[in-house]
Amino acid sequence: MNQSIEFVSEGTVTTPVGFQAGATFAGIKTYAKDKLDIGILYSNLPCSSAAVFTTNRIQSPSVVLTRDRVKKGGVRAAVVNSGIANVLVGKQGYDDALEMGDLAAKNLGLPQDEVAVLSTGIIGVEQPMALIRAAVPKIEISESGGNSFARAIMTTDTNPKEAAISYVYDERKVVIGGVVKGSGMIHPNMATMLAFLSTDAPVDADFLQDAISESADFSFNMITIDGDTSTNDTVLLLANGAAGGPTIKKGSKEASLFKEALRELCIVLAKEIVRDGEGASKLFEVTVGGAVNDEDARIGARAIASSSLVKTAVYGSDPNWGRIIAALGRSGSEIDEEKIALYINGVCIMENGLPVPFFKDSVVLLMKGTEISFRVELNLGQGVGTAWGCDLSEGYVTINSAYTT
Amino acid sequence: MNQSIEFVSEGTVTTPVGFQAGATFAGIKTYAKDKLDIGILYSNLPCSSAAVFTTNRIQSPSVVLTRDRVKKGGVRAAVVNSGIANVLVGKQGYDDALEMGDLAAKNLGLPQDEVAVLSTGIIGVEQPMALIRAAVPKIEISESGGNSFARAIMTTDTNPKEAAISYVYDERKVVIGGVVKGSGMIHPNMATMLAFLSTDAPVDADFLQDAISESADFSFNMITIDGDTSTNDTVLLLANGAAGGPTIKKGSKEASLFKEALRELCIVLAKEIVRDGEGASKLFEVTVGGAVNDEDARIGARAIASSSLVKTAVYGSDPNWGRIIAALGRSGSEIDEEKIALYINGVCIMENGLPVPFFKDSVVLLMKGTEISFRVELNLGQGVGTAWGCDLSEGYVTINSAYTT
Repeated sequence: MNQSIEFVSEGTVTTPVGFQAGATFAGIKTYAKDKLDIGILYSNLPCSSAAVFTTNRIQSPSVVLTRDRVKKGGVRAAVVNSGIANVLVGKQGYDDALEMGDLAAKNLGLPQDEVAVLSTGIIGVEQPMALIRAAVPKIEISESGGNSFARAIMTTDTNPKEAAISYVYDERKVVIGGVVKGSGMIHPNMATMLAFLSTDAPVDADFLQDAISESADFSFNMITIDGDTSTNDTVLLLANGAAGGPTIKKGSKEASLFKEALRELCIVLAKEIVRDGEGASKLFEVTVGGAVNDEDARIGARAIASSSLVKTAVYGSDPNWGRIIAALGRSGSEIDEEKIALYINGVCIMENGLPVPFFKDSVVLLMKGTEISFRVELNLGQGVGTAWGCDLSEGYVTINSAYTT
Repeated sequence: MNQSIEFVSEGTVTTPVGFQAGATFAGIKTYAKDKLDIGILYSNLPCSSAAVFTTNRIQSPSVVLTRDRVKKGGVRAAVVNSGIANVLVGKQGYDDALEMGDLAAKNLGLPQDEVAVLSTGIIGVEQPMALIRAAVPKIEISESGGNSFARAIMTTDTNPKEAAISYVYDERKVVIGGVVKGSGMIHPNMATMLAFLSTDAPVDADFLQDAISESADFSFNMITIDGDTSTNDTVLLLANGAAGGPTIKKGSKEASLFKEALRELCIVLAKEIVRDGEGASKLFEVTVGGAVNDEDARIGARAIASSSLVKTAVYGSDPNWGRIIAALGRSGSEIDEEKIALYINGVCIMENGLPVPFFKDSVVLLMKGTEISFRVELNLGQGVGTAWGCDLSEGYVTINSAYTT
């Protein structure tokens, strides 16, 4: 990491200059301990905006609306509810998304097109608009509202997930903040991952889109809880320029620094999601190195991190290298069996495609920790990729097989 | 199914005329209740042969050897061991595969190239060749040896899986038999699926390859236990022509009848594998109809059958239609949300993309059975595809997280 980049203590989405947030209890997320279920994020300056959305062909009308608004440009606020995903409810879903956005726009005194609308929760249930109409006007935003906002987007998450990162460039300090919710699925179909990112850097909209797409590819797209993707997944990034300085665009001197900081922030937030995966007790990191290229390395790392057999082995603290190599083998990554090496928490388990006579008890002990690393060396080229996964426990099954409809 | 096709009572791989099999206990599969662990299948007439192999890039040398021999043509026998997969053991693996094949060829009085060699079991352990050298000569084959052979290929399977099907064409009776082992994975990396199919039909080798590739695509490739694929998966089909009649080749009158019978047999055997999936208590069938084409339908059906969230819902008898539609949405199948209908065991749960107010208790009751069907109608075209899956239980996790290395 570049020396000037550092994480901000107790950072959140309102840490960058000019961002405010707030939340209230509408009565949608009745099952959760934390009742906050509707929130607003706002920049007091105009923003350039960019986003990445789910590739699922079933999409919430909120996603459709927000995609259009981000594409048009100028989004500087977002309203989000948790508890109901506003999906598979027919034409009413779009009307409800529109109205929820209008309520927030009115609260903030903004044109309706400047507000993104997001939802997460149960599929196939209409939004309780009477509750939402009563709640949105009550939301009070402030510069200390990031944590309330982080709690308001949680569904089955057990803790709010927030962070901020900063760098200094040309004597100006730039901050990027973010909150995310994860893909725990205690309630039905709450697979949604939402991320709200904010920065006080002045960023060209095209470059902002490049930066968030690339950062998401190296973070949120490299984590896996159970392989299912949601109808509502969204990563939204707003840049308001409050830090001053020239606009960051492709090729500018500051561009790579901004990208690196954004990526580091996204990775930290993505790992928080995995750590809080449903029934999960361990986070494991899979790095594939020496691949023919980075993309190939990432394909291999993802396949290993998402293998049910690897996940159960991690749960059982079992250094089952055969499962790791078999998952790599089916990933499609270019490999040469005789060149593969594997390390578990730094201990060499395999070399030249053959198992090494390692002392099993000590590796089992290492794997009893809550953070485990697998490193596969393909010895074919310079490509590197990292993915993160959580273990698969009986708890996951118990939680997800409970009646939910 | 064509009227002349019918299953043979107590059918197995030696039911077709001219096939014999046998097995013995070498001492490789020591953990299992049934100790038979090495078997031979043999046709007393020359055969045309065809096969489908794993696409995993890590492959057993046994697979490499067998692929070469099937490609060359004329394979009429197979030797197979269970307990050790003969994979990731370096160059020794190929030598051991060769020697095991030679031992079987000597027992049968055949040239070595006419014997296929297959293995299933633990990864990364060398074959105990002293045991194999002692065992193979002892194997006695007979026309009633199909069941012994079926037991000898089992690893964590809880029961042997065998069947035969027949049809009458032009007053000649043709029989196709088969045995399979499944992908239970109590021991490490026993994900291997092996299928041995035999027929007394006279079949042109090119058409035989077409027929087995297509049949595998509609059966073994449409089942899912946990998404992992093995280093040793093989489907082998031998045709010895003992039934007489003209050679079946592409475009011949009998060709489509033969293909249909083969496919039906493969589907029955594939469903047996799913039913015996690890920790599985239920078999569910997913049919996607009305797709733009068959391939698209199969992609959708497979995505639903392999979703961990759908599998846990099946385990919990939860008619969680949102998970089914979300899995369909991420599959890549062409869909129009407003046209989707969903039926669980014939009960309409969703229509025109919207949930129907069904009586939940009765659907939960239906889902408590051991066979469940999901039918999705996309209402876009004529494409149809079917996949099969098993539920995901705490048992799967418990079994797979136990120390195994």
